[in-house]
Amino acid sequence: MKATTDSLQLLRTQLADFAAVRDWDQFHNPKNLAMALAGEAGEVLEHFQWLTFDQAANLPAATREEVALECADVLLFLLRLSDKLDIDLAAAARKKLRLNAKKYPVRKSRGKATKYDKL
Amino acid sequence: MKATTDSLQLLRTQLADFAAVRDWDQFHNPKNLAMALAGEAGEVLEHFQWLTFDQAANLPAATREEVALECADVLLFLLRLSDKLDIDLAAAARKKLRLNAKKYPVRKSRGKATKYDKL
Amino acid sequence: MKATTDSLQLLRTQLADFAAVRDWDQFHNPKNLAMALAGEAGEVLEHFQWLTFDQAANLPAATREEVALECADVLLFLLRLSDKLDIDLAAAARKKLRLNAKKYPVRKSRGKATKYDKL
Amino acid sequence: MKATTDSLQLLRTQLADFAAVRDWDQFHNPKNLAMALAGEAGEVLEHFQWLTFDQAANLPAATREEVALECADVLLFLLRLSDKLDIDLAAAARKKLRLNAKKYPVRKSRGKATKYDKL
Repeated sequence: MKATTDSLQLLRTQLADFAAVRDWDQFHNPKNLAMALAGEAGEVLEHFQWLTFDQAANLPAATREEVALECADVLLFLLRLSDKLDIDLAAAARKKLRLNAKKYPVRKSRGKATKYDKL
Repeated sequence: MKATTDSLQLLRTQLADFAAVRDWDQFHNPKNLAMALAGEAGEVLEHFQWLTFDQAANLPAATREEVALECADVLLFLLRLSDKLDIDLAAAARKKLRLNAKKYPVRKSRGKATKYDKL
Repeated sequence: MKATTDSLQLLRTQLADFAAVRDWDQFHNPKNLAMALAGEAGEVLEHFQWLTFDQAANLPAATREEVALECADVLLFLLRLSDKLDIDLAAAARKKLRLNAKKYPVRKSRGKATKYDKL
Repeated sequence: MKATTDSLQLLRTQLADFAAVRDWDQFHNPKNLAMALAGEAGEVLEHFQWLTFDQAANLPAATREEVALECADVLLFLLRLSDKLDIDLAAAARKKLRLNAKKYPVRKSRGKATKYDKL
């Protein structure tokens, strides 16, 4: 069997090992992980709350690096949650993209931020 | 040049195309994307808010599928945000894992949910 | 005219003054305030993410005080947001309670955490 | 004893009654309530995610009414959480305002959205 080189799969395994060796699976119930996920998304958010669109699109290097690590936290908890729920995250994302392609046909959604149920 | 088979990279490119063809880049400022990310994380959260730990770990199949698609939404906006900020998400996640390994040495953190600054 | 003694109204006025004297109204667009609100709710959340139900219901005094101040932050941004949108928050809450009483009739919702549309 | 006319206190009592008669206290553990609070804040957020600052400050009447009811949900869960934690929410908010007045002296913070620890 060839080892995977897929970054999501590698991270998922590394996270499982990271938790196992620290005996953290007892804390990693999906309920707790959903909370941690939302908490980290809130930290990403806080970086942008007082910024103009221009400032948000042109972060100073140090802030950008901080945001990168907050985004990493979101991904890590998302992978841990998916793992615990036995969800194939990449497959779910591909499925969602296909659903979105149907909900947002190019002709109807072009240049509009309208939600599909109001298109 | 060989095309990538990495799921994160593929999704990132597909998302960029999805937005480009719909002329959505005008909406995909990092500030807006950080909001969408947190909103989707909130939707994951809502699935779990009244559940016991047992219920959260044993979702009915239909709920699990709904949660999978919400998790997908989180990943899709996280990738879009990373793309707009020119962040290599997988690299940031690997860096964060290395930092966490230092912040949470096995000997000190084993079996504890304590934050690193209180360990 | 008699001055109000209502705590929500008093806080709303004090917050408006607090912002005005600091020239912060330029930052207090409803979009930014909605972000700050969600960010603060995320901070409340993070206090509870690894706790059991028992631990959550029996916080140490110091943690309880920290949570109280995070809850305060949520209220302050919620009041600021309502003020900027010209929403009477207490009236909206009373209206929502009346709507909930209809959506969740005692006989159908007793002892159940089921969402109204699935009752 | 004179009955209170304070809107926060009235709502707090009404919410406690609303839950009691539905036998919902079993679900209203602070952990669950913190999740519900963050979920509702996420719903407020979603109304604003694709809006410009101008659009956010000039919501159509129907959207404004929807946002008002989402803000109400945030307040209702915040009151329920405070009640369960035995927190006097108005007192905590007044305390936080006093702390903020010290952290953000007018002279140093005037016209700046900088966080106090970087002022």
